[in-house]
Amino acid sequence: MDLKTYLQERKRMVDAFLGSYFSVPFRPQRLHESVTYSLSAGGKRIRPVLCLASFEACGGRAEDCVSYAAALELIHTYSLIHDDLPAMDDDDLRRGKPTNHVVFGEGMAVLAGDALLTEAFVLLSDVRFRPDSISDSQVLQVIQEISFAAGQEGMVGGQAQDLLSEDAEPDADTLAFIHAHKTGALLRASVVSGGILGGADVDALESLRQYGQNIGVAFQVVDDILDIVGETEVIGKPVGSDESNKKMTWPKLYGLEQSRLKASELIAAAIDAISGFDEKAEPLRAIARYLGERKS
Amino acid sequence: MDLKTYLQERKRMVDAFLGSYFSVPFRPQRLHESVTYSLSAGGKRIRPVLCLASFEACGGRAEDCVSYAAALELIHTYSLIHDDLPAMDDDDLRRGKPTNHVVFGEGMAVLAGDALLTEAFVLLSDVRFRPDSISDSQVLQVIQEISFAAGQEGMVGGQAQDLLSEDAEPDADTLAFIHAHKTGALLRASVVSGGILGGADVDALESLRQYGQNIGVAFQVVDDILDIVGETEVIGKPVGSDESNKKMTWPKLYGLEQSRLKASELIAAAIDAISGFDEKAEPLRAIARYLGERKS
Repeated sequence: MDLKTYLQERKRMVDAFLGSYFSVPFRPQRLHESVTYSLSAGGKRIRPVLCLASFEACGGRAEDCVSYAAALELIHTYSLIHDDLPAMDDDDLRRGKPTNHVVFGEGMAVLAGDALLTEAFVLLSDVRFRPDSISDSQVLQVIQEISFAAGQEGMVGGQAQDLLSEDAEPDADTLAFIHAHKTGALLRASVVSGGILGGADVDALESLRQYGQNIGVAFQVVDDILDIVGETEVIGKPVGSDESNKKMTWPKLYGLEQSRLKASELIAAAIDAISGFDEKAEPLRAIARYLGERKS
Repeated sequence: MDLKTYLQERKRMVDAFLGSYFSVPFRPQRLHESVTYSLSAGGKRIRPVLCLASFEACGGRAEDCVSYAAALELIHTYSLIHDDLPAMDDDDLRRGKPTNHVVFGEGMAVLAGDALLTEAFVLLSDVRFRPDSISDSQVLQVIQEISFAAGQEGMVGGQAQDLLSEDAEPDADTLAFIHAHKTGALLRASVVSGGILGGADVDALESLRQYGQNIGVAFQVVDDILDIVGETEVIGKPVGSDESNKKMTWPKLYGLEQSRLKASELIAAAIDAISGFDEKAEPLRAIARYLGERKS
């Protein structure tokens, strides 16, 4: 399969949905601008694409799942806005553009994040975008899956631990916790949600969960590696920004070579987890390989 | 009916649920502390109580609705934490205690708010707390109602307009927008949610919506009045804090006497809206009167 075309088409589908959904301004205009500024700042839409690919692996048509996929991007975008705040990572640059609070001020940036997080649940519970093949019960399971992954025992918990660990000496257990929660949880939930909506049975869902778990951690390991070896131009933020933040990272703890090995192992485990799926899961397999090899 | 006893018992029911729900610590401990600090900082639990009273007005038993009622308090508490941030209202004191960011730092306060908002949806979509009388479809409607009221076209929109208006001259349209959205929307959604879960038909739901709409705005008008005439001891924040923030308020725009009149009219309209309900709606009526006359 041609992964590049697949990724482009799915990304375009999600962007078209988001563009249309947020095309109607609301009051105050400045909040609308702040929300759409960060939503349209680019990004690979990897969480929505994972959700769509998982839905397709279960036999669904991507178009039927796009609103749920888009909701994941709202949550991801909110997390970036809040993570970049001066009281958190204090980043001025994101995807090569000034961060939300630099442009709109801290107060508005907090609110834009709050709005995006909340809107994810408006979207998930909106019956207008739901095909007949998806039931109330499936949507509720997805809301449970996504909110749990995004919350205190998922992404927010990981970010809180990250914040508390900024000036601490690296420790393997803490690093694993941060990776699994801050980034891994929502990536896993993206895959699992696609499976729930696609009608996966218990075993298939467990396979997808393991796939998601493995690529979730691999994603962050590769991120840490790229922060050291990438170039500012390519990754859109200053190289070494984790280093200057005194952040715990995989390479800092295990070295670059071991980190690369770990990423490869996780990718292989992800692909192995979905060995029971047929050729409709090829995009999931290709995405896993791509995440391991990506340069930005 | 004895409103004081009613309010105490319903508040105790919600507090017991929240206490139990958050009794299991999660990692990192500091996030758990930050979340529970603000949740247990007191407060009248007026949104949960409104949800329960509305559910009871439709013939339900309060115990069956307590998890949904509690979710509303999570959203309210998150909004207080974020509103108090230095980049927003910059309040050091809330309900007589240091605000979350004063105790836990700004970054953790942002995350505690994020956690509480997200946890509301974990709770709403959790089947463990749902009685058989409530269907998937009703829960989804409630999630739609609450998320819409809390989001960019509801509470967050109102807070954003409030933030943008801090140094501006008061203007009646803007003030009405802020009141209806910042405070009114979630209060209304609390009432409507109780109705949805209680199985209210279209007409009954519309009556409850009007009741909620009116008390929602009245609540904020009375808040503004109390900010001028109340005492620090009683309301738990410095009197005149809105004034020193150069905030738009009802009394500033219309004067104290007209503001009191407006509050009375809104309360009367709220009670009138539910005239078709029987004696099971007495708590709703008593709460409306109480909200108009409260001194803190």
